[in-house]
Amino acid sequence: MKESLSIVKIGGNVINDEEALHEFLKSFSSITGKKILVHGGGKIATSIGKQLNIEPHYKDGRRITDDKTIDLVTMVYAGLINKKIVAFLQSLNCNSIGLTGADVNLIPAIKRPVKEIDFGWVGDISADSVPVEDWEALLDNNWLPVVSPITHDMQGHLLNTNADTVASVLAFTLSDLYDVSLFFCFEKDGVLTNPQDDSSFVRKLNPGMFKNLKESGNLADGILPKLINAFDAVDNGVAKVVIGNSEKLQGMISGISGTKIIPG
Amino acid sequence: MKESLSIVKIGGNVINDEEALHEFLKSFSSITGKKILVHGGGKIATSIGKQLNIEPHYKDGRRITDDKTIDLVTMVYAGLINKKIVAFLQSLNCNSIGLTGADVNLIPAIKRPVKEIDFGWVGDISADSVPVEDWEALLDNNWLPVVSPITHDMQGHLLNTNADTVASVLAFTLSDLYDVSLFFCFEKDGVLTNPQDDSSFVRKLNPGMFKNLKESGNLADGILPKLINAFDAVDNGVAKVVIGNSEKLQGMISGISGTKIIPG
Repeated sequence: MKESLSIVKIGGNVINDEEALHEFLKSFSSITGKKILVHGGGKIATSIGKQLNIEPHYKDGRRITDDKTIDLVTMVYAGLINKKIVAFLQSLNCNSIGLTGADVNLIPAIKRPVKEIDFGWVGDISADSVPVEDWEALLDNNWLPVVSPITHDMQGHLLNTNADTVASVLAFTLSDLYDVSLFFCFEKDGVLTNPQDDSSFVRKLNPGMFKNLKESGNLADGILPKLINAFDAVDNGVAKVVIGNSEKLQGMISGISGTKIIPG
Repeated sequence: MKESLSIVKIGGNVINDEEALHEFLKSFSSITGKKILVHGGGKIATSIGKQLNIEPHYKDGRRITDDKTIDLVTMVYAGLINKKIVAFLQSLNCNSIGLTGADVNLIPAIKRPVKEIDFGWVGDISADSVPVEDWEALLDNNWLPVVSPITHDMQGHLLNTNADTVASVLAFTLSDLYDVSLFFCFEKDGVLTNPQDDSSFVRKLNPGMFKNLKESGNLADGILPKLINAFDAVDNGVAKVVIGNSEKLQGMISGISGTKIIPG
């Protein structure tokens, strides 16, 4: 039987609120078995960026990562947020190690090719090249990887990568070795059928329901990429994928909270 | 026979100048055998701090690390500088891993006790508690640690620590397992007997010469803590300690450049 591995993604408001983050990390630290934490950036990068006069750049409504922005997110995600999480987990006796995709080339990526839009320093993960044996070595040492979504192109350039995608790719890549459960934590109790009604979350979501939700136009802002990554994970062999509230992580694990993603 | 381990500390101007840093890293990457790079912060933290209205604080002429400053150096040292070095080393096929003392509790520290001065979030290393087996695990995986001088107190707080001391403590702590050479790289060709004359560097320095230099008042700015750390290392079993110019790393290794520190 394969050993269990829990991969938890946090992002959004919980990152911005130190008290909420600490409560979440206490809950996370009590998960038994091997675990990996993937974190996003929250709004801290935007507020520090403003002070540094680095305004978010958009082209055709899509965010662009220019030279200044990749420096900013590297500082904030891989430095400030990542190491604060590591230090807090250490205080809970979780022997964590803060990493990016550049470290040990743990998440190989390529700069997104320029088509209609030049996204700048944005990385698309080369899932087939993830060095599974290095991840295994980290986990076998009983080190708890805390991963920020910065990758690199093996040419010396750092890249900004979607944290949901990092979590999803790690989950399905490591499913050959571990019995992986993937938890996407955010502000809502699950996937809502009516974005205006927080109580409208579904307990399960299969591809047919997902298709209907998309076609109805009733998906909440920002949930589409999360759902695409969630279905990617279950369709590629991840045993369990749940989307839910970061305040209810233990309920997501025991099965009483969140939306469970059902493969097609 | 013990395996060789080269520990190289860089700081100062080479960190601020991307071209010089890349030249240095190319030279560093060609060192055979196991190696660790420890880096300081250069002037980047000061210039980003200015933009964020974080002015350096001093009390009785000593720099204080307040709340804003520890966030700043965590961003710049552990994020921006560390991950840029890692990405560049990866492009040279050096499988590096960027770390702080908080990661895997690799450099245990305590907040400096408040005596005449409250230094704020400054960490003094607990050398006896360095987890040698974790360092060995990193090096046995053929991962190249790139270490930024941020530590933590196991209570959830990050701490600012002198990078020369980090390098020195790692060197003598790992000397039980490895044949360690420690190289302190900076702007000068070595230890100068006349700080106004760059050509006045000595090829060797023993404790008697060091004492005379101190008493003569002829030590260049900032070299005293470096020399204390260098003598700490040789006095605690480090096989070879050299101080020299980051542009002449290969010469320092082969013995034709730099000032060699001679134990008492």
